[in-house]
Amino acid sequence: MQKSDIIFSCVTYPRSAKENVIGNCGVAGREGDILDGKGYVEMTGIDPQTSKDICEIIKSKGGRYLEAQIQGSKIEADEGSLVILTAGDKSLFIDCQSCFKAMGKTAFFLGDTGYATKTNLILQLMKGIALVGLAEGLALADRCGISSKDVLNIFKLTNLNCDYLTNKADLIVKKDFKHVEQAIEHMQKDMKLTLDLSDQLKQPLLMTSTANEVYKHARRLGYDGHDASCIYMRT
Amino acid sequence: MQKSDIIFSCVTYPRSAKENVIGNCGVAGREGDILDGKGYVEMTGIDPQTSKDICEIIKSKGGRYLEAQIQGSKIEADEGSLVILTAGDKSLFIDCQSCFKAMGKTAFFLGDTGYATKTNLILQLMKGIALVGLAEGLALADRCGISSKDVLNIFKLTNLNCDYLTNKADLIVKKDFKHVEQAIEHMQKDMKLTLDLSDQLKQPLLMTSTANEVYKHARRLGYDGHDASCIYMRT
Amino acid sequence: MQKSDIIFSCVTYPRSAKENVIGNCGVAGREGDILDGKGYVEMTGIDPQTSKDICEIIKSKGGRYLEAQIQGSKIEADEGSLVILTAGDKSLFIDCQSCFKAMGKTAFFLGDTGYATKTNLILQLMKGIALVGLAEGLALADRCGISSKDVLNIFKLTNLNCDYLTNKADLIVKKDFKHVEQAIEHMQKDMKLTLDLSDQLKQPLLMTSTANEVYKHARRLGYDGHDASCIYMRT
Amino acid sequence: MQKSDIIFSCVTYPRSAKENVIGNCGVAGREGDILDGKGYVEMTGIDPQTSKDICEIIKSKGGRYLEAQIQGSKIEADEGSLVILTAGDKSLFIDCQSCFKAMGKTAFFLGDTGYATKTNLILQLMKGIALVGLAEGLALADRCGISSKDVLNIFKLTNLNCDYLTNKADLIVKKDFKHVEQAIEHMQKDMKLTLDLSDQLKQPLLMTSTANEVYKHARRLGYDGHDASCIYMRT
Repeated sequence: MQKSDIIFSCVTYPRSAKENVIGNCGVAGREGDILDGKGYVEMTGIDPQTSKDICEIIKSKGGRYLEAQIQGSKIEADEGSLVILTAGDKSLFIDCQSCFKAMGKTAFFLGDTGYATKTNLILQLMKGIALVGLAEGLALADRCGISSKDVLNIFKLTNLNCDYLTNKADLIVKKDFKHVEQAIEHMQKDMKLTLDLSDQLKQPLLMTSTANEVYKHARRLGYDGHDASCIYMRT
Repeated sequence: MQKSDIIFSCVTYPRSAKENVIGNCGVAGREGDILDGKGYVEMTGIDPQTSKDICEIIKSKGGRYLEAQIQGSKIEADEGSLVILTAGDKSLFIDCQSCFKAMGKTAFFLGDTGYATKTNLILQLMKGIALVGLAEGLALADRCGISSKDVLNIFKLTNLNCDYLTNKADLIVKKDFKHVEQAIEHMQKDMKLTLDLSDQLKQPLLMTSTANEVYKHARRLGYDGHDASCIYMRT
Repeated sequence: MQKSDIIFSCVTYPRSAKENVIGNCGVAGREGDILDGKGYVEMTGIDPQTSKDICEIIKSKGGRYLEAQIQGSKIEADEGSLVILTAGDKSLFIDCQSCFKAMGKTAFFLGDTGYATKTNLILQLMKGIALVGLAEGLALADRCGISSKDVLNIFKLTNLNCDYLTNKADLIVKKDFKHVEQAIEHMQKDMKLTLDLSDQLKQPLLMTSTANEVYKHARRLGYDGHDASCIYMRT
Repeated sequence: MQKSDIIFSCVTYPRSAKENVIGNCGVAGREGDILDGKGYVEMTGIDPQTSKDICEIIKSKGGRYLEAQIQGSKIEADEGSLVILTAGDKSLFIDCQSCFKAMGKTAFFLGDTGYATKTNLILQLMKGIALVGLAEGLALADRCGISSKDVLNIFKLTNLNCDYLTNKADLIVKKDFKHVEQAIEHMQKDMKLTLDLSDQLKQPLLMTSTANEVYKHARRLGYDGHDASCIYMRT
């Protein structure tokens, strides 16, 4: 910390992200830590409240905070086509431009802390639901004696064709769930964070809550560590 | 009927499709009707059982039957990029080639009567679920104070970007549900037919059944005749 | 039929009930069958439309029709405490009084054909949902390391205590699903008939549709012929 | 605190319950607070984790902790027929006997801290689901032109008859949702706490999550402060 001007944090869960900042060994955990204008960029997929909590701590130590949420999986990372959603300190966003350009095709600055995490969860919600729909359809096809592969070939010609669902359908056709683009526990975490957000807003999310139970069920059956598309196995 | 060699049927509901064939004025309703090799192509979005029933009648009169289900909406129709899924009598499929080419970019022959209707319902299921997910996400965005338009702009850069969802999101952003690509009652009909199919197979379809209730709710609120994306208004 | 003045029909599915009346060997299937004031009481658990169809046929042959739906299972049958819901021909209802009294504690006449079947489905919906709730709760208890038996003992002291749920909880505690009070396929049939009814009315039934998928899932896992409480095994 | 030997805490939300203990004015918030064997009984409807957190603090100050969860609403309170579920310090449970007897008909001691809160949530889950089922059925009845009152009269003769559902049905028949037995926000809180618990255990709770969305929807429509049975208005 003494030497870096900008710290990028990227762990697995909101709790760990927060502990990285608060904890005894955290960047702002010890008394007298003065961040003095240094930047802290949180890239962990987190909820708005955790992000605001981290933001407050960083700012109280004189640091600058930016939440930067990544849209895209390993495939987009390899292609350099990740989309980066940021919010918080705009000067820090500008300072990070070169880094963001190396990572993704576009970086958005969306305003006050919380807007990037919210927007990210909204997009994850859409993906999470569409994926369960894909798996449910392919499971029905299988039950009808229609091969997933044939459905996928037709699917690619329809107007629902997109990289996200095609990649997932490929994994389902091959039943290759150990090829992890996004682990099911991370997908379920995003569904849960979105539901927690909706709870505070009293916003009903029928499909998200049902999708969440489907992901939970697959995790219950022991699929942690597999790609989220493994829900196909339980539908 | 005396003059046509191939009849194309395209009405709104399975019941009407069947009545067109069975009813007093139907092609095969009167005694002594001999179809004698003539072709009957059912393009109405129907369920496998209705299709098999129609097939049986047509064949019993000496006719040839083909179920031809259309993937795509008005937009694809205008662009000539509809996908046509067929099953039944292969010789009739071949006889229809020129017609199908005029309508769409690709026509598939999938085997015995029932396979095209099933495959079509499976693809509709995926669309129907993804659409409710899109609407649920945009409703949450709105509730968070994030404009649908901003979400749509980011959405277009993600790997879930596809014509189907982008077109629907456009309608939601404009709240232009009278611009009907697919009427909500047709979408809900497809969900219902898929659920009926799954019932016979004892195949659970959690997301489809929840999506069906969402479409029903919007219909209950008086949205018949509007585009299916109008579910945004009830989420 | 020649000798009986009142026929009581009680089979398993709506389709069989209708075939009993329409089919070649059915009471009204042959030409010239004149029922001439005789009574036909349909006790099969059926949907309103099937009941109306049967009613029409019986009446067209000069017969009188009454739908009589049974609330209660084997336990209530043994205790003579079944509740009988009827609708249709009131004179036939009166003629059946002695029979109904032998079977149950109360028989209601609810009006035109359809009202008894609808009321029965509504009560089945409530039971079907409450039962999935019970099973879901007991499954969570088990997962928490709390025995079903302990929960049941406390449950009996709460204001949700009732014979229906207590009997079902007993079966779950004993995992004695071969002791069939109501077979899962009949319960799922009732959920499906209720959903079909709601579809015609565009009435959303979120919980019923989710419960239906749970029952379907258990059937898919091979539990046909077991008591409906066997859903505990899949939750 | 100086004078009381046992403190009973009963507020609305887990957060407030915890703050009562931790906060600046809380019983254990100030340094040097020595509880020295005094008892702290948490009667707020809370989740197991919050209860364990409170327990830890109380014990660290030398106090004894008991979670005591109440099954029953105002009606049972008036009748003295509440059921009290407790867990934690058994000596404190014994010391509270006279108090508990004044409040309810039975008090259970269920073991280590957490077991009473879990058991309570499990019973709440069952009630919460059964109530949505009741409302869904009565809404369907209304849509069918069958009066809620008639259904209720028949319901009372079935084996699902119980005080909980009958009381709720009474409120629905009268549309008297300002007569609050249990406010909808408390019911939804219990659903949410149960879902959070299930999330940690990866235990799918399909019906609970759907019920939770129904309660959320009613809250969204402005029904906070009304009895939970007001969900009838949104079904």
